[in-house]
Amino acid sequence: MVEAYAARRERLRAHCSASGADAALITRAANVRYLTGCAPCGATLLLTRERAVLALPEDLPPDDTGEHRLPDDPEVARLPVPEGTDTALAAAEAAARLRVRDLAVEEHDLTVSRHRRIAGLAEGVELTDLARAVEQLRVVKDEHEIADLRIAAEIADQALGELLESILVGRTERHLAMELERRMIDHGADQAAFPVSVGTGSHSGLEFHLPTDRRVEEGDFLTVVLGAQYRGYGVSTARTFVIGAAPAPWQVELHRLVFRAQRAAREALGPGVPQHAPDQAAREILQSGGYAESSLHPLGHGIGLEIREAPRLGPADMGKLDNRVPVTVGPGVHIPGKGGVRIEDTLVVRPLEEGGPELLTITTKELLAL
Amino acid sequence: MVEAYAARRERLRAHCSASGADAALITRAANVRYLTGCAPCGATLLLTRERAVLALPEDLPPDDTGEHRLPDDPEVARLPVPEGTDTALAAAEAAARLRVRDLAVEEHDLTVSRHRRIAGLAEGVELTDLARAVEQLRVVKDEHEIADLRIAAEIADQALGELLESILVGRTERHLAMELERRMIDHGADQAAFPVSVGTGSHSGLEFHLPTDRRVEEGDFLTVVLGAQYRGYGVSTARTFVIGAAPAPWQVELHRLVFRAQRAAREALGPGVPQHAPDQAAREILQSGGYAESSLHPLGHGIGLEIREAPRLGPADMGKLDNRVPVTVGPGVHIPGKGGVRIEDTLVVRPLEEGGPELLTITTKELLAL
Repeated sequence: MVEAYAARRERLRAHCSASGADAALITRAANVRYLTGCAPCGATLLLTRERAVLALPEDLPPDDTGEHRLPDDPEVARLPVPEGTDTALAAAEAAARLRVRDLAVEEHDLTVSRHRRIAGLAEGVELTDLARAVEQLRVVKDEHEIADLRIAAEIADQALGELLESILVGRTERHLAMELERRMIDHGADQAAFPVSVGTGSHSGLEFHLPTDRRVEEGDFLTVVLGAQYRGYGVSTARTFVIGAAPAPWQVELHRLVFRAQRAAREALGPGVPQHAPDQAAREILQSGGYAESSLHPLGHGIGLEIREAPRLGPADMGKLDNRVPVTVGPGVHIPGKGGVRIEDTLVVRPLEEGGPELLTITTKELLAL
Repeated sequence: MVEAYAARRERLRAHCSASGADAALITRAANVRYLTGCAPCGATLLLTRERAVLALPEDLPPDDTGEHRLPDDPEVARLPVPEGTDTALAAAEAAARLRVRDLAVEEHDLTVSRHRRIAGLAEGVELTDLARAVEQLRVVKDEHEIADLRIAAEIADQALGELLESILVGRTERHLAMELERRMIDHGADQAAFPVSVGTGSHSGLEFHLPTDRRVEEGDFLTVVLGAQYRGYGVSTARTFVIGAAPAPWQVELHRLVFRAQRAAREALGPGVPQHAPDQAAREILQSGGYAESSLHPLGHGIGLEIREAPRLGPADMGKLDNRVPVTVGPGVHIPGKGGVRIEDTLVVRPLEEGGPELLTITTKELLAL
């Protein structure tokens, strides 16, 4: 694992060389983790041609679950920083001491205030923009990362499966969400990858719904959106069910439509495929059913150390997908006041000769009557 | 309530006038909420001399719990912004259209990238720094805010009280933390104010401890740190107990020391008192017991719409406390490998003639044997 981090640092060094920077200052937590294995703790990584210096709070609590706080890595020098001091300042001072002339920083992460303080402190050092170079490195995953995503997906599926075997009628959205979170943690998740969403009745089918005290009732559509995080890697999955013995015809029809749209999008995934193609495939089917998706909500996005990563799978996205890129595919329809259907999977883009896209989140997408 | 928001906006306008800015661009979520009542949703507030424009995502989900998403306020014009567009950009464009010349922005909140984009978009508008002007307005609370904090504290105390009546031995830190969170939500909290911390045995007494799968055992110290958020306002409280029939002498002694230190700090609170005085009072007692608090961890801090607010109650803080400023007071001692004691309250600074500091978090601080 330590070798993987070292290799990633080398790729970043190569990027910096190519763009004329002597060194990079990495402050974004997911990027620090990607390059060192250090779980989020306010640390900053300074990467020069020869060195890797990790400035981190000196009083980090002992971490009994330990393994992913910070691996022993002979190449990474630790620079302890007193409580209350910005680790980015300490790292920038180190850069000045190491006579770095051109320091690429993450302008999409540093506030104007922090940037000013760094510039003020690191005399003689010119600050340039690293932009999203590390986010770009993170897009294509290696098989270790995919293995972690696979486990995260299993955990989410297990939690969901257990919930579906229990009585749901009469329980509140909030309680169901909290139970799903508890089950994911019981099954080994670091934490939920994002706040679990449970929407029943007219709350179903929404992409972002904060669980309320509404109780599940017979005849409701129920949409659950959840994800587990495992060793920093998170997945996302959404399923919609119907509560009670027999779905209404409008429910069957809407579910079938969204199911077909989501399937078409999944089947459109592949290396070399334009990022907008899966969204287009889903959108066409939804429109054929009379649902003009007037918003420009993208169908999905990359996923990994952050829940939303490059690449975006939206209608205007011009790039191309690559092998070993995990993405979410999650269209939905929501009818205000009535409810709706959302179905989301996390998959890994793979070539056809390897079986096509690898589905990680395998809970059935059928309209189960619960 | 709408009048309160309007009055706050007037105070901010006065500040801007005094500093030469035509208008302010508020992006920090807690500040937007303070000035408009809008719960966090990515919104940006543009406040000019005559207008208040709230740029917010156009597709916010319907919010059934509704009351605090966004109050009806005739003075605040809503500017819906398409999904995927930065509301700060939309608000900056509005500023340019309204011929704002000098726009004060929150440099401690905007990233360098966002700032660049805003500057690029708002031609003819000079961007200056608002700094923490709104955070300063937020320091002294009105009685409505204090009422919300009181309820948040009651909720946390209730949840804790219920837990203490249950069996703790054999349960994991994680499960106890999740149960406390569930109970707080059941009692009306928006959410936990921050992730609940439960530390048992050698994990006790820590300020920041992420709950693990360690199980509570007889003879353990158990430290619980929790807080509820109610209508956006959060509190924080920490208590340490002993598990089993009889605490060991070292446990009784350590608890007594931290209790005395915390009491001295609470009693040092008052309007006009230097911010460092409570910390100093606690530190002296801990040092007299042989625990040199070598770190510069501040004893406490302001609290309200954010869990950590001005004023800071640290050893080097030179300002003075004011009437109606809620603060946390939470010293502790942690002995690596053994455990420790942490005791924290949330109180409101009040003058002696009004009874001295108002204690919000009233669960007993005694060393209960559970």
